[in-house]
Amino acid sequence: MKNDASFSSTTTLHQVAQAAGVSPATVSRFLNGTAKVSDDKRKALERVIEELNYKPNRLAQSLKMGSTRTIGVLTQSLESGYFNRAMVGIEDAVKASGYALLIMSGHWHADEEAERVELLIARRVDGVAILTGNLSDSQILGFSKRVPIVAFGRQVAGERVLGFSLDNYRGACEAIEFLINQGHRRIAMITGPEDHEDARARLAGYRDTLARHKIELDPNLVVPGDFQESGGLLAVNGLLASNQRFTAIFASNDLTAYGARLALYRRSIRVPDDISIIGFDDLHSSMYTTPPLTTVRQPLYEVGMNIGHRMLDMLGHPQPPMDMPALSLVVRESVRRL
Amino acid sequence: MKNDASFSSTTTLHQVAQAAGVSPATVSRFLNGTAKVSDDKRKALERVIEELNYKPNRLAQSLKMGSTRTIGVLTQSLESGYFNRAMVGIEDAVKASGYALLIMSGHWHADEEAERVELLIARRVDGVAILTGNLSDSQILGFSKRVPIVAFGRQVAGERVLGFSLDNYRGACEAIEFLINQGHRRIAMITGPEDHEDARARLAGYRDTLARHKIELDPNLVVPGDFQESGGLLAVNGLLASNQRFTAIFASNDLTAYGARLALYRRSIRVPDDISIIGFDDLHSSMYTTPPLTTVRQPLYEVGMNIGHRMLDMLGHPQPPMDMPALSLVVRESVRRL
Repeated sequence: MKNDASFSSTTTLHQVAQAAGVSPATVSRFLNGTAKVSDDKRKALERVIEELNYKPNRLAQSLKMGSTRTIGVLTQSLESGYFNRAMVGIEDAVKASGYALLIMSGHWHADEEAERVELLIARRVDGVAILTGNLSDSQILGFSKRVPIVAFGRQVAGERVLGFSLDNYRGACEAIEFLINQGHRRIAMITGPEDHEDARARLAGYRDTLARHKIELDPNLVVPGDFQESGGLLAVNGLLASNQRFTAIFASNDLTAYGARLALYRRSIRVPDDISIIGFDDLHSSMYTTPPLTTVRQPLYEVGMNIGHRMLDMLGHPQPPMDMPALSLVVRESVRRL
Repeated sequence: MKNDASFSSTTTLHQVAQAAGVSPATVSRFLNGTAKVSDDKRKALERVIEELNYKPNRLAQSLKMGSTRTIGVLTQSLESGYFNRAMVGIEDAVKASGYALLIMSGHWHADEEAERVELLIARRVDGVAILTGNLSDSQILGFSKRVPIVAFGRQVAGERVLGFSLDNYRGACEAIEFLINQGHRRIAMITGPEDHEDARARLAGYRDTLARHKIELDPNLVVPGDFQESGGLLAVNGLLASNQRFTAIFASNDLTAYGARLALYRRSIRVPDDISIIGFDDLHSSMYTTPPLTTVRQPLYEVGMNIGHRMLDMLGHPQPPMDMPALSLVVRESVRRL
C-alpha cells in the first residue's frame, strides 16, 4: 500500500506559506535553519505553524540534509533486561536532540550481527550503537568507514569509532573479596560463554582473587554456564551430583544466579543459610528474588546515556563528558557470614 | 555530520550496470521489481550484485515507492518483559518481508503516546503497531486516517485500523476456578491500575467466578496494586497489617506476584505451604521464581506474530490467517491443595 494522499498530514508547506504571507522557499529555509529569516517573518511563521498544527515531513527534510535523525542500535536480544536497561539510557540521552532509535537484534551471532548492521546502514541511520556481541574488531572498523559507531563492551578504537567497556575484572574481584571477607573459602563459580570477553574477565577476577588470598582453586568447583537461567540450574545440579563441597556460588550473571537458586530450592537447600549466592549485573528483578540477590551492579542506564552522548558528539551535537560510575557491589540477602 | 561520500557504500548502481552490461534504468527496475527483465539479464545482474557486494540505498529506493519498509511500534516500556516478548514476535513476523521496527515508548501517558505516534508518522513508517496504552479510540481512529494501525489490547475498529485483545476475563475466571478447585475460599486479589482495561477484566473475572461458586466477596481482600513488583509488596504488607485471613492471592500480573511473594518471605510465610499465589502473564522469569509461579499464560509471542502478519496484510503482503492460542493456565508450584 502506498502512502497516498489520504494518508498524509492535511496541512502542506504551501498552505503554511500562503497563510504566513511568505514564499514556500522561505518556510523551507526557516524549518531547516539554513538561512536567516527576519524577526517579523519568524513570528508570523511560528504562529501559523502552531495554528495549522503543521507537521513538516521530517524524514524527507532530513534526507535532503543527509541525516535521518535515527540512530541504529544493534542489541543482542530484544528480551534481555540487561540490554534493555542500556537502551532506555540511549533513548533518554538522544530524545531531546530529536533522534529516535532503530533497534535490531543480532542474537550473538557474528554473521547475523553483520547483516543487521548492513541493514541499519542501508536505512541511512546517522550512527550505529553496538551493544557487545561477537563482531570482530576489523568488522567494526570496516563499518565505521561508512557510519560513526559507538561500541559498548568493546575496546575497539578508530577515527569514527569509539569503544568502551566496564571493568568486569574489577567487579568480579570485589565479589570474591566480599565472599572471602564473609568467611567463605570453598567458592564455586558458574562461568559464562567462553567466547564472551566479559565472561572471561569475570573468571579471571575469580581466579586471581582466590590466588591473592592464597586459596587454592579447585577446578571441580568451576562449572560452565551460558548466561541463562537454564545454564545456572544445570551447573548446580552438576555440582551437587558430583558431591562437591562448597559454601558459596559466584554466578557469572544474575540470570545464572536465578537458575542456581532454583536448583538449590529443588533440593531444599536454603539460601543463604546453607549456600550463599552472588550474581553479576543487578537486573531490576534481582531486588525481588527470594532472598533478594547480592550482586555486582553494572550501571547500565548510565552506560546507555554515555553511548547516546558520545554518539551525539560524533554527529555534531557536543555533549558534556560523563563520569561513568564504576561497577559496585550491592549487598542484599543472598550471602551469609560463615 | 552529513553522510558524505566517505560514508557511503563503495559500489554504485552505475558500476553494477556497467559490469552487467545493462542500463542503469534496467538495474533500477530489476531492484524495484517494477518491470520484467529477461532471464539472461536477471542472471547476469544477480551475479554482478553478488560479486560487487552491492547494497542498494534501500531507504531512498523505498521513499520513491512511498514506503520506508519500517513499521513503527508504540510500546509502553522498553524494559518490560511483557511488551518485549510481543516485540520479538512482531520482529520475527515481518523480518522475511524486509521490514524493520522503529520502536518508541509511550510510558502509559496518553499525551506522550500521541506525541510518539506523531513522530513515527513524521518518519514515514508504513504502519504503526500500538501495544495497549491509554490513547482514546478516537485518537487511534484519527491516526489511522494517516497510516494503517494494528492495536493490541484494544477493540477499536475502522477502515485502516485493526484492534484485537485477549480474553483477560476468561483467563481470570480460569485462575479463580483453579484456586476454588484446590479448596481455597478466602482468596485475596491484588488489582491492577483502574484505568487499565485488562486490569478491570481480570477483576471482573475474579468477582464473577466467586459469585458463580456462591462465595461471598470480602471487599477487605481486594487491594490495589500497580502492575509492578513494588505494588504487590505493599499490597501484601497491607493485607497482613490489617490481619485479613486468606489462603491464596490472585495477583493481577506476574510482577505483582513477585512483589507479593517477597512480602511473604519477609515475614517467613511460606509459599505455597502457608499461602498460595497465582499470577497472570507468564513472563519468562516466572519459570525460575522460588517456587516457580502458577500463572495464566498470555501467548505474547503469538500476539506479536499476529500483529506483524495483520500489518503485512494491510501493507499489501497478505499472510495466512492465524489461530491465536487462548489464554491458558500454567500450573507450577505456587498453589497448594488445601
